[in-house]
Amino acid sequence: MSKLSAPTRDKLKTVSTATLTTCLFKRGLRNQFLQDVHPLNPAAGPMVGEAYTLRTIPAREDLNPITVFQDRGHPQRKAVEECPPGAVLIIDSRKDARAASAGGILVTRLMKRGVAGIVTDGGFRDSPEIAALALPAYHQRPSAPTNITRHQAIEINVPIGCGDVPVFPGDVVVGDAEGVVVIPAGIADEIAAEAAEMTVFEDFVTEQVQQGRSILGLYPATEERTRTDFAAWRKAKGR
Amino acid sequence: MSKLSAPTRDKLKTVSTATLTTCLFKRGLRNQFLQDVHPLNPAAGPMVGEAYTLRTIPAREDLNPITVFQDRGHPQRKAVEECPPGAVLIIDSRKDARAASAGGILVTRLMKRGVAGIVTDGGFRDSPEIAALALPAYHQRPSAPTNITRHQAIEINVPIGCGDVPVFPGDVVVGDAEGVVVIPAGIADEIAAEAAEMTVFEDFVTEQVQQGRSILGLYPATEERTRTDFAAWRKAKGR
Amino acid sequence: MSKLSAPTRDKLKTVSTATLTTCLFKRGLRNQFLQDVHPLNPAAGPMVGEAYTLRTIPAREDLNPITVFQDRGHPQRKAVEECPPGAVLIIDSRKDARAASAGGILVTRLMKRGVAGIVTDGGFRDSPEIAALALPAYHQRPSAPTNITRHQAIEINVPIGCGDVPVFPGDVVVGDAEGVVVIPAGIADEIAAEAAEMTVFEDFVTEQVQQGRSILGLYPATEERTRTDFAAWRKAKGR
Amino acid sequence: MSKLSAPTRDKLKTVSTATLTTCLFKRGLRNQFLQDVHPLNPAAGPMVGEAYTLRTIPAREDLNPITVFQDRGHPQRKAVEECPPGAVLIIDSRKDARAASAGGILVTRLMKRGVAGIVTDGGFRDSPEIAALALPAYHQRPSAPTNITRHQAIEINVPIGCGDVPVFPGDVVVGDAEGVVVIPAGIADEIAAEAAEMTVFEDFVTEQVQQGRSILGLYPATEERTRTDFAAWRKAKGR
Amino acid sequence: MSKLSAPTRDKLKTVSTATLTTCLFKRGLRNQFLQDVHPLNPAAGPMVGEAYTLRTIPAREDLNPITVFQDRGHPQRKAVEECPPGAVLIIDSRKDARAASAGGILVTRLMKRGVAGIVTDGGFRDSPEIAALALPAYHQRPSAPTNITRHQAIEINVPIGCGDVPVFPGDVVVGDAEGVVVIPAGIADEIAAEAAEMTVFEDFVTEQVQQGRSILGLYPATEERTRTDFAAWRKAKGR
Amino acid sequence: MSKLSAPTRDKLKTVSTATLTTCLFKRGLRNQFLQDVHPLNPAAGPMVGEAYTLRTIPAREDLNPITVFQDRGHPQRKAVEECPPGAVLIIDSRKDARAASAGGILVTRLMKRGVAGIVTDGGFRDSPEIAALALPAYHQRPSAPTNITRHQAIEINVPIGCGDVPVFPGDVVVGDAEGVVVIPAGIADEIAAEAAEMTVFEDFVTEQVQQGRSILGLYPATEERTRTDFAAWRKAKGR
Repeated sequence: MSKLSAPTRDKLKTVSTATLTTCLFKRGLRNQFLQDVHPLNPAAGPMVGEAYTLRTIPAREDLNPITVFQDRGHPQRKAVEECPPGAVLIIDSRKDARAASAGGILVTRLMKRGVAGIVTDGGFRDSPEIAALALPAYHQRPSAPTNITRHQAIEINVPIGCGDVPVFPGDVVVGDAEGVVVIPAGIADEIAAEAAEMTVFEDFVTEQVQQGRSILGLYPATEERTRTDFAAWRKAKGR
Repeated sequence: MSKLSAPTRDKLKTVSTATLTTCLFKRGLRNQFLQDVHPLNPAAGPMVGEAYTLRTIPAREDLNPITVFQDRGHPQRKAVEECPPGAVLIIDSRKDARAASAGGILVTRLMKRGVAGIVTDGGFRDSPEIAALALPAYHQRPSAPTNITRHQAIEINVPIGCGDVPVFPGDVVVGDAEGVVVIPAGIADEIAAEAAEMTVFEDFVTEQVQQGRSILGLYPATEERTRTDFAAWRKAKGR
Repeated sequence: MSKLSAPTRDKLKTVSTATLTTCLFKRGLRNQFLQDVHPLNPAAGPMVGEAYTLRTIPAREDLNPITVFQDRGHPQRKAVEECPPGAVLIIDSRKDARAASAGGILVTRLMKRGVAGIVTDGGFRDSPEIAALALPAYHQRPSAPTNITRHQAIEINVPIGCGDVPVFPGDVVVGDAEGVVVIPAGIADEIAAEAAEMTVFEDFVTEQVQQGRSILGLYPATEERTRTDFAAWRKAKGR
Repeated sequence: MSKLSAPTRDKLKTVSTATLTTCLFKRGLRNQFLQDVHPLNPAAGPMVGEAYTLRTIPAREDLNPITVFQDRGHPQRKAVEECPPGAVLIIDSRKDARAASAGGILVTRLMKRGVAGIVTDGGFRDSPEIAALALPAYHQRPSAPTNITRHQAIEINVPIGCGDVPVFPGDVVVGDAEGVVVIPAGIADEIAAEAAEMTVFEDFVTEQVQQGRSILGLYPATEERTRTDFAAWRKAKGR
Repeated sequence: MSKLSAPTRDKLKTVSTATLTTCLFKRGLRNQFLQDVHPLNPAAGPMVGEAYTLRTIPAREDLNPITVFQDRGHPQRKAVEECPPGAVLIIDSRKDARAASAGGILVTRLMKRGVAGIVTDGGFRDSPEIAALALPAYHQRPSAPTNITRHQAIEINVPIGCGDVPVFPGDVVVGDAEGVVVIPAGIADEIAAEAAEMTVFEDFVTEQVQQGRSILGLYPATEERTRTDFAAWRKAKGR
Repeated sequence: MSKLSAPTRDKLKTVSTATLTTCLFKRGLRNQFLQDVHPLNPAAGPMVGEAYTLRTIPAREDLNPITVFQDRGHPQRKAVEECPPGAVLIIDSRKDARAASAGGILVTRLMKRGVAGIVTDGGFRDSPEIAALALPAYHQRPSAPTNITRHQAIEINVPIGCGDVPVFPGDVVVGDAEGVVVIPAGIADEIAAEAAEMTVFEDFVTEQVQQGRSILGLYPATEERTRTDFAAWRKAKGR
């Protein structure tokens, strides 16, 4: 798994998924924001971590009795115990929220193990409990039925699709109160740096607009005056 | 209509829809959780009651002028006045939320009459007002247009589909902050008992996991130690 | 653009979208409530204003590099600077929320310019920031990707569809915590007057129902007693 | 059940569903054409008959073992044996084509019994066999799984929705190679008469357009010359 | 409108939409094939022509009585009489096939006027008749209801979206038995030339594969032998 | 991969997917028929073979230039050259038909290599050519864009979902003019035997019904007379 550096992790905690998608768009990556995946607990703070993936297929009834979880090697349980601290467990549930991808006990265990967050393009059960945890969690909608009703966890840490986005193990997964974006591992450092810079400029712009300034010439900065003002603001703010 | 006993009603108020779906799954019932039906007022508390059903068909324009509600026998109005106290009014709106299934005045009337809750797989109008009522209410999404724009209420207390779930009059409808589950009338007592027991165990497991214990061997309880610890915990807690 | 009078604007701020759809339904207009369009900031207060429209088409990659916004004449930026104070900027995003229709900076600029609100049938980026603004804003769901990922703004102030509703420039757009309704310009005054009257009656009915009265004969007012009681109530309340 | 007269039945066999929807639209009925319901055997000829309805709900697993069909009173089997000759069996399958609404043997039986046709908004199994029968049949798409996998037939000859259209027992159901339209029983005679007249005119127009004439003034007939030409054509053709 | 040259038109008649999408993909255009738009009459031959567009919005009931067509300036009728010979009339129906975009008489008129084809992302009425015409026609699915039931034609020859594809007036629209692709006007000549070349190579490959050759090294032509063989084949075939 | 015996293969060629789903339903398997997957060439004859799977994820733009196919190890090309004769290549395209899963040349190569058929829950390009091949092929709808526009082939012969059905390598895939069913490898022999027996009975029933006999007592065979008649018929027919 690619190593996510501490400075990059820290930078990514200060930028929005919106800003990140713009940086990715500039590199021709148009499809890195998870579609229809929402935070259960937006106040849990930003989520940043390497992708640790879990793949599911539709459940076949004879292979998925309630007893499957007695097997310690069951991929869902294994993923919960082996997802590295600091990583994000991201589950390909084939956008099917008719049964849960996981529930409150497993999500609590992930939190206690120091995992950075959990994401599915299906739904979680015990969603009110999960919404009260300190761990960032993202799903499509609440879904009470136990996962084996519809899903069979089949493989750990292979490339998956989640919310129509390609996710490779080690990609950097970032979540905020808006949603989740996936950054290819190889460009995480440069994207983080660029997004952090963009954020400084956007904070300046927001302040100017709040003071009544027009966006024309300001955003984007096509006027010389904008660049001068920004330099001065930046100096004054020490950013 | 099947009689829902007071002890079963009380037990069902203490268990989650997630736990109930697991009990139903063990009996081969995989499809009892309403899909895409959400609480307007999750803090209104748990909802438990026998299903009192209302069926709709698409509205034909000539049969649904605004004057239809002058008829006291109109099934929607009749349902609101006749749904028994303690029951849940559950409406088959064919998953069509383009017009309302009901609005604030009718829902208030149901609350005053002692009904246990209201559910539709369409939408409610006056949803901000309904969200402020003490009555548990569940729908797909807010929908301002009056019901006769799209729906004609046609029959009371017949078997229906709601949120892709079969609902027979007298089935036990349980809602929490996650959503709504339907329990066949004939097994409500045994499901309630089993779910209450499961909840005790899950509370124990959650506490253990919060204290840092692994789920392996604990959940499910494949290790002898888990069973011993649980017995001790249960005794200590008096549950 | 049709002139929305101050009294009509004021009246429309006191009535619900639900009541308005009923008034429109009585005139044969069944399709004026935007489907699947939700408030980001329901507490921002009611939204009333003439429609100022923006139309988009799917983005063609070669025509939509990040540099397009350097053009001050870009329809999206032009719309933000030219939408009249008191009007509502309403965007036809073809119900596609896979990329944003606008973001926090532009919405802030609209707010500062005195615009009455912003509506899209797609999604907004920076949705957490927009949700904290005092400007009413409505969309389908949060969407971080920059608008040019999927949308090309192409025309200002032409008739559009938004949320499956026809919208002509100058139509009156009203939003509350439930959603958004569009009133044809030519009947805005009469609809506002009728809805204000209906609201008085519905407030009376709600109070009666809260006190335990049955809806039969009361709502609709088919009993003489209802009309007498209402007249007395109205007098007492000075409405 | 309303009596469909032989002359009306005959007329309806000569007009298209497109023409019928126009006649219905003129009476304010906008929603009588079944959405996403297609002919399996367009060459089987026009279908005209009174609606004999079958309603289904989602199947509950314990109530729908393979043995249910041993009950002669099972509504699906009963419907097949009791649907009157000349009527159309129309099934509310809740637009769910994941399991069949019926199969080849039952459809063959309906054909032998003299039924006019069969319609579902779900799917048929044995669709290649059904497509080869002389009986008009309409569905959404082929679906092999036996009906009890998803559907429980629950009621016969009650009002239903089918393909988003309201259908009352006795309504007149007309199908052609395009699809299916439902005519309220009370206006079947007048709609048939009007549609037959319209068809004569449209045949005239089509011939004129095939000969190179512009539609302006011709269709609709806003020019005096059109009316004169049509009168002459009609006389010449003896229609 | 951009001029489509006769040689380019001729070349485009000999290549498939599949080959064209590959040429477009190489230029970064990933989204030029109309989604869910199908030929009614695949045997009508290839369709090539400049886009002449018609835009619709959702129909408002009061603006769309049956009498609107008495107005010769109605955009739908105007489009049918003014779409240039050799052009393709392409309609933005907002992917809504619940009512027709056009019917048999109008499509016949277009054919007689020498138009190259007609496309909608909605549906046609009189679809069996249209399927029998010599004019290439493409839609989503048959739809009997008259267009004003759901659609109001509002503008002619402006940029539109159709089947999720951006279409500018003058773009080159190509259809075959698979579907429809839109080529930006400015690159039509080069795309046609490249596609014609690719088609020669693919014909060679298909012949080789039919004779039992592996695709490895052949398709794409990574082996020297492939290039030699192709040169020889081409010479022999005179292509 | 499990060995599919020649007698079982032969039997499966004589039974319908409808009959097979009933046999599977009796064993509690309700979800083995591929949803929304249709034959391109229903006359190509029945398809029977072991599943050889290909899994895709959404395409990331930088990883999927047109040059990827120069790599002989690309999973899509590898699958085409290595899928065993007699097997069925079945592709998990995540139900996304916006780009092709494969095209005419690859499908031709599979046919020449003796593969039994090809299935995707996405779409094929060159669909008119594929429809003319002797190889059974199944997809959702035609789709011209090259696969790398949306899909990255990522893994061969792992468990997948296809059309909402779980598919394990070696499962037996059967297709007819209705669609495709997946039989778990371990029960293929018994399912084939049971389905063949059922088919004999259903042929008898169909003949009886064609002669005017009621289905009551006949289908299912609840009457003694049915069993006697069937025994006689079977003897007479030598089946």
